[in-house]
Amino acid sequence: MPSQFDPPSGTRDFLAADVERREHAFAVIRSVFSRYGFEPLQTPAFERLDVLLGKYGEEGDKLVFKILRRGEHEASGEADLALRYDHTVPLARVAAAYGSQLPTPYKRYALGPVWRADRPGKDRYREFTQCDLDTLGSESLLADAEALSAQHDAFAELGLQEFTILLNSRRLLMGLLEAFNVPPAIGAGVLISLDKLDKLAPAEVISELADRGLAGEQAGDLVGALTAADSADRIRVALTKTEEGTAGLAEVDTILSLLSGQIPPGRLVFTPRMVRGLSYYTGPIWEVTAAGIAGSIGSGGRYDRLIQQLGGPDVPATGSSIGVERILPLLSDDDAATRGRLDVAVTVMRDDLADQSFALAAAARSAGLRASVYLGSSAKLGRQLKWASDSGARWSVIYGEQEHEARAATVRDMTSGKQVQIPAADAASYFASLRHGTS
Amino acid sequence: MPSQFDPPSGTRDFLAADVERREHAFAVIRSVFSRYGFEPLQTPAFERLDVLLGKYGEEGDKLVFKILRRGEHEASGEADLALRYDHTVPLARVAAAYGSQLPTPYKRYALGPVWRADRPGKDRYREFTQCDLDTLGSESLLADAEALSAQHDAFAELGLQEFTILLNSRRLLMGLLEAFNVPPAIGAGVLISLDKLDKLAPAEVISELADRGLAGEQAGDLVGALTAADSADRIRVALTKTEEGTAGLAEVDTILSLLSGQIPPGRLVFTPRMVRGLSYYTGPIWEVTAAGIAGSIGSGGRYDRLIQQLGGPDVPATGSSIGVERILPLLSDDDAATRGRLDVAVTVMRDDLADQSFALAAAARSAGLRASVYLGSSAKLGRQLKWASDSGARWSVIYGEQEHEARAATVRDMTSGKQVQIPAADAASYFASLRHGTS
Repeated sequence: MPSQFDPPSGTRDFLAADVERREHAFAVIRSVFSRYGFEPLQTPAFERLDVLLGKYGEEGDKLVFKILRRGEHEASGEADLALRYDHTVPLARVAAAYGSQLPTPYKRYALGPVWRADRPGKDRYREFTQCDLDTLGSESLLADAEALSAQHDAFAELGLQEFTILLNSRRLLMGLLEAFNVPPAIGAGVLISLDKLDKLAPAEVISELADRGLAGEQAGDLVGALTAADSADRIRVALTKTEEGTAGLAEVDTILSLLSGQIPPGRLVFTPRMVRGLSYYTGPIWEVTAAGIAGSIGSGGRYDRLIQQLGGPDVPATGSSIGVERILPLLSDDDAATRGRLDVAVTVMRDDLADQSFALAAAARSAGLRASVYLGSSAKLGRQLKWASDSGARWSVIYGEQEHEARAATVRDMTSGKQVQIPAADAASYFASLRHGTS
Repeated sequence: MPSQFDPPSGTRDFLAADVERREHAFAVIRSVFSRYGFEPLQTPAFERLDVLLGKYGEEGDKLVFKILRRGEHEASGEADLALRYDHTVPLARVAAAYGSQLPTPYKRYALGPVWRADRPGKDRYREFTQCDLDTLGSESLLADAEALSAQHDAFAELGLQEFTILLNSRRLLMGLLEAFNVPPAIGAGVLISLDKLDKLAPAEVISELADRGLAGEQAGDLVGALTAADSADRIRVALTKTEEGTAGLAEVDTILSLLSGQIPPGRLVFTPRMVRGLSYYTGPIWEVTAAGIAGSIGSGGRYDRLIQQLGGPDVPATGSSIGVERILPLLSDDDAATRGRLDVAVTVMRDDLADQSFALAAAARSAGLRASVYLGSSAKLGRQLKWASDSGARWSVIYGEQEHEARAATVRDMTSGKQVQIPAADAASYFASLRHGTS
């Protein structure tokens, strides 16, 4: 049962370990994208309502979080702003606003939350992070290959073990429909059905195609070619009969060739039955799948008309997107998530010696360690060592009367329980040696 | 005149150089806070409306961005969610929700945007970043000193040159009013007037105090003591007459003593006339000022009742806040803001050699350099070198027919124009040596 203190439905609070795990993954992705020469872009959390409405279809419009007008207009119950629904519409606006100030091509990434008033469910949130990489202003297949390669490297550098990139082309699919004599009027529907071949049995898809008006024999041929063991070869033969098919196949082959040296064999696979639902793609398309995850963990493709449709300039565009929240559970926990809150816990045995404890904590921090003094009210050593242990500290530092008289500090290894006394004046260099494992 | 492509009023788009400058500053702050054992907390961008309303006073309620109900309820014109107005109310909610899962004391920082429907103006935004550091659950002055020290270190590590931390105590101010026989009924108003001593002439403040009902002689004594050259000493003498004043002075002196080894002399200054407008403070208070900036760039203090008032548990609390957007203009540009978009720009001289150009860019990236191939359609070298130059690349790599035949690559230093030919197979190690400045 939700409590009054829970975050709003479909959103999450991220406590320390979660923040650290997420930020680590985000930092890896930013670093990879930056090495490809993509630059960051951050747009506001909200846009004017008219910028967003009508861009995502009728269903999408319903999922946009709308912000009430303010002040005297609040009572009108009208909205004039809306929370960012994705990073693509803001990109189109930015391309229109800053045109000549932006480099050509404009290669940017955006990594940040978006908001959708979807029905919350398992792994479905109303606030979630999208991670997009796009190149505006290049018609070259090199741009597609680069977007795909950068995405691949991000997954690899995140430590993802088993993943596959399914490659296809929208033009190739058009050629495929033509080659198998699918009437243009039902082409879009046929593609939607073919896209289910990874989930449904061939017979089920054939039956769906029949419902869409594709004759049984034709549907059987098409599904047969797409599901055969030598599917890619059979499709290649069929495609050469059409102009679009030939062009699409050339797109796929060019990308395969460009990336043959970058992506390990078998990880980038020409997959003629892979459709990508969204109709705005115009060239190469790809989708990333991983063992143990239903659906895709990333996708991408060329969308040469979309930026203009969304209110931006008429520029060719290609890009990829990482389902960053979907892959976080796949990544092995890094240290950050399991290490303690502190490296060094410094006791405070007497109020009038607290300034010395402060100085010892500062010495540990200057050596790059995380250090804090005890902030409780008890002067009992046992209580303070329990706090040190609860904090996950690797060392505790005791500074009491005896140490004060000896101008020393006692450093206790919290794992072994061993203690050494060091001159207080040497604390900084001693902590530096602890940090580098030489003590 | 605002264009239809501008971001919403009071918000900003951050292009690459801005994002990099901001993220660099944020990373420094996170690193300092983490070294003090503060842990990150991220809460959603919005909260349930009832969590926020009534927490910021009537004026504050008007500045809360409210989100319209969705689906069939949208037509009602009612709101049920609202954008985060600060990080403190979410902290109170989190403290209530996760109580026993959180460490005691709970030391957390929050760094992220908040939204206020304020009238936009110079340096006043509707979306801006707040950076808070708070310790819940410790009554100890060590916690106050630690919050102040961490804030100080963040400013110092950001490279801020001239800044001063004004230290005072709410209890001390209460004692001051008592020592100067200010009637309790007008105490709050008198403090508001005294707070203006940094902006107004003493005579003006005395006149304001008279308007508030403080007798001319009394007002003169009080302002005289606070503005005298030996103000701190005179105030000390006056305070010892009262219990609250003595207690407040002890708070100030304890913090001064605790931090005497950490903060350079003269940077942390007992300032009896510093009031801090907000009434929720209960103990030590401080404010950070910097040369060349009106108002404060940071603040902090103890607020032992506030978390409960905001709907959280009854815990003592202290913390500090950095006006991170205010200090960004004070920081000297780091490399990130001025360096080019690329380190290495790789030409593509012939389509059928593009895969080799891709491989060369990958080799540069594997050496940690930012590298990209040319994505335009022209095969002319001059055009491609102009792109390399526009990208700020330090080196361009030329791979044409001649290089292909020689299994080599030509690396051109974009500053000197000098070119060397290297074996293509050695590219990765050559780029690594370039990166480390040994070539």
